[in-house]
Amino acid sequence: MNQKKEYLDRCVELAAEAYQFLKNSTVKDRAAFMYAVADKIEKLGPELIETANQESALPFPRLEGEKGRTIGQWRSYADAITTGLYTEARIDLANPEKGKNDIRKYSIGIGPVVVFGASNFPFAFSTAGGDTASAIAAGCPVIVKGHSGHQKTSSIMAAVILETVQEFGWPEGVFGHVLGNEVEGTNTKIGAYLVGHELIKAVGFTGSYWGGKSLFDIANQRKEPIPVFAEMGSINPVFAFSHILEENPEQLAKDYAASLTLGVGQFCTNPGLFIAVKGDGLNKFKKALQEAVIGISPAKMLNQGIYDHFEKNKSLLSNQPSVEVLSESNTLAENGQGRPTVVHTNAKNFLENEILSEEVFGPFGLLIEADTYEEVEKIAKELNGQLTITFAGTSADVKEHLNIFNIIKDKAGRLLFNGMPTGVEVVYAMQHGGPFPSSTDPRFTSVGPDSVKRFVRPLSFQNWPNEFLPEELKNENTLGIQRIVNGSSTQNPINSQS
Amino acid sequence: MNQKKEYLDRCVELAAEAYQFLKNSTVKDRAAFMYAVADKIEKLGPELIETANQESALPFPRLEGEKGRTIGQWRSYADAITTGLYTEARIDLANPEKGKNDIRKYSIGIGPVVVFGASNFPFAFSTAGGDTASAIAAGCPVIVKGHSGHQKTSSIMAAVILETVQEFGWPEGVFGHVLGNEVEGTNTKIGAYLVGHELIKAVGFTGSYWGGKSLFDIANQRKEPIPVFAEMGSINPVFAFSHILEENPEQLAKDYAASLTLGVGQFCTNPGLFIAVKGDGLNKFKKALQEAVIGISPAKMLNQGIYDHFEKNKSLLSNQPSVEVLSESNTLAENGQGRPTVVHTNAKNFLENEILSEEVFGPFGLLIEADTYEEVEKIAKELNGQLTITFAGTSADVKEHLNIFNIIKDKAGRLLFNGMPTGVEVVYAMQHGGPFPSSTDPRFTSVGPDSVKRFVRPLSFQNWPNEFLPEELKNENTLGIQRIVNGSSTQNPINSQS
Repeated sequence: MNQKKEYLDRCVELAAEAYQFLKNSTVKDRAAFMYAVADKIEKLGPELIETANQESALPFPRLEGEKGRTIGQWRSYADAITTGLYTEARIDLANPEKGKNDIRKYSIGIGPVVVFGASNFPFAFSTAGGDTASAIAAGCPVIVKGHSGHQKTSSIMAAVILETVQEFGWPEGVFGHVLGNEVEGTNTKIGAYLVGHELIKAVGFTGSYWGGKSLFDIANQRKEPIPVFAEMGSINPVFAFSHILEENPEQLAKDYAASLTLGVGQFCTNPGLFIAVKGDGLNKFKKALQEAVIGISPAKMLNQGIYDHFEKNKSLLSNQPSVEVLSESNTLAENGQGRPTVVHTNAKNFLENEILSEEVFGPFGLLIEADTYEEVEKIAKELNGQLTITFAGTSADVKEHLNIFNIIKDKAGRLLFNGMPTGVEVVYAMQHGGPFPSSTDPRFTSVGPDSVKRFVRPLSFQNWPNEFLPEELKNENTLGIQRIVNGSSTQNPINSQS
Repeated sequence: MNQKKEYLDRCVELAAEAYQFLKNSTVKDRAAFMYAVADKIEKLGPELIETANQESALPFPRLEGEKGRTIGQWRSYADAITTGLYTEARIDLANPEKGKNDIRKYSIGIGPVVVFGASNFPFAFSTAGGDTASAIAAGCPVIVKGHSGHQKTSSIMAAVILETVQEFGWPEGVFGHVLGNEVEGTNTKIGAYLVGHELIKAVGFTGSYWGGKSLFDIANQRKEPIPVFAEMGSINPVFAFSHILEENPEQLAKDYAASLTLGVGQFCTNPGLFIAVKGDGLNKFKKALQEAVIGISPAKMLNQGIYDHFEKNKSLLSNQPSVEVLSESNTLAENGQGRPTVVHTNAKNFLENEILSEEVFGPFGLLIEADTYEEVEKIAKELNGQLTITFAGTSADVKEHLNIFNIIKDKAGRLLFNGMPTGVEVVYAMQHGGPFPSSTDPRFTSVGPDSVKRFVRPLSFQNWPNEFLPEELKNENTLGIQRIVNGSSTQNPINSQS
């Protein structure tokens, strides 16, 4: 399915018009809208889950959980903006004796945002997902390019948002929904066209490195470059150390196998790489891992394209020199199913062969058996940027390997002490995003209320009469938001007589 | 003067080593360092001002003022980081019943930063200027590429910082200072080489559009793209409305002429464009402006290159069709001196000729005489992004022209209600930076404590034992910083028994 250029232009123009409305809305206005969207998603009947299941092959309980998470995103981001945390209001009052002006600054939505739905999260990272919720929270209209893998699901979610726009009497361009592949009569992808459009001011994306990087390049080659927040995946290394491997190798193996194969391995935070030094502990871990993986059944992947990529990349890595299969599910996979597989090699081989650092999206793990901790340190140093890195160890392990702890701080957005990286909580302290190439901009998260920060810019007003200031900056502080007034944080109004 | 590649590589490697030290420093450690730098600058003898005067031709009082401002930047950014405002600590405590992990996030320095000195602010936007102060505040080592226009001044300031590094026993790479033009034996500029170096993680720049944009392009074409904060200038339009023109055209003209020629017009916020509708008020304004400009003497510009550019661009704009000189200083300028000049044209001509929107760096103004407010609105809509826009008017003017007020919100980082844009206060509420092409990234300011935000990235810790967390995230909160704990802002420690 293709779309006419005129149709896309109209979508963008409507979004630009709606921005003129949204930029003068308050955090309270937008929070009310977001609560209404959340309520509507909550009330959607079984059709939503059934449709998503048909389109994505994701099981019902997972989809129910993801629906709950999606609703939670709208609500928690709405809660967060009403505190003023992302308004970042700063007021420096005039001091004529010192020649100081009255200057007031706040964060305003950056403009229309294009959001790309992700294949692996039809709710939470797609049409009504976190990028859309955070952009609207910031005061930006959104145009979603729905993912081809779940167009019906996308349309159900779009209808919910559009219905809310209507009920609130907001301009229709607050939300736009575009499906399809190319701009009619051209070879230009719809996504590329939208990102290149001069009225678009930012981009949210979750997907492959090549997809994200190509949008990033388009955005930076525009006459007016714009920010692209692309979360592009990661191999999420797990570094396991001697004490933990000696103390409880079986539990670690079970946890690792479970995380590696959760959701058929189709998570950005899937722990595709496991590094440890040879020894008794590692031998026990390997044995337990073999047993765990053997017993995990293959399951249907999101779509044929993702399955084909999985098979291709799995065999590419598996067939590299000195790479051997450690364990596979003992059930053969049907076409379209991902078969859990773990391969292993030595550290020297890993360090010499860049292909072994490639992400294999699916239930595939690579175990590196190092001879020494010097090799482990070298691997840590050579790593590309990651969304997460896990330090599997005891406190004694950390103390013995502070050098490695220090190195991995530079390589990831989130560092785990034990546990597994799958399961990204929607909280203030979450960082989902990491050094390039795991994302295009490690300075921002795409999960948690802080994701709102991606879509604002500061605007200062100097010596404006109170009546013309945005509500967020007026003396009265009717919104009750936290503001920094003359350097101190306060919710108090400003006494205009002072 | 050129530099050997090996020398530059060594500077960058030292900076990368120093980052490993700085990233584990606390806001208190860095604030102490910054206060010490400020104290040392304060104690510098008359040599500093004399040298800067010789190199930049800027007068003594201006340089004294700029020195004070520079000291104030180090101190106020140090004050600001100790509150925790830029640490952005967020702590979500574990809740095992709900399956919630302990997750803690804070902002860590992004890595080694390259800073480019600006010609027009030898102190405040150069070697020991705001970019350097904010990067160190964030926990980043800095390599300054000193401006060729004031190398001796740059060296004095560099020596102050290097001396502080030594006194504190910090690694020498915390601060590096590079002078020169090209990498020896190549055609590569030193700045381009540094920005392209894989160990460099961000760039601060103040200067021309072409200078900033070329660094931006290099940074985005790297294997790992990095952020470039380039403040690239602006024509800072002043929109004047009928009531103010009728009420007090003489004062407005005086203020405008003074701002336009302040510092020989060599400010990023110089108001190079003035727009008003024809009428009695504007006629009075023009007459007063003519008188004001005639009486302002030419003065020596920063250097020959800047003077040559000024003359070239001034005559380019002045010689466009339908552009006429309105007023010039009645004193002829010597070689190297900028002669205050205002030209005028009509709105139609301005809208049709892009050259008239070019910045002329120096004491040069372009007055647009519009026939109608529809034309003024059109000019507002067509404007490029600006650092500042000034609304010269009364409250009645704002009420009559809310449409224009609304448009200019999208076009600038700072909106003034009367007054003039020169004079950028170093306060929390300052926004110095605006939509492209006035800066490469309108989401950040290069003046005020918020400039620290440019040089950090968030890092999350999941389930880490308290002892291994950075001081900023430990239960005890010995730094006494403001943190968001379970969604609420607090300075309290966390009761580890709870």
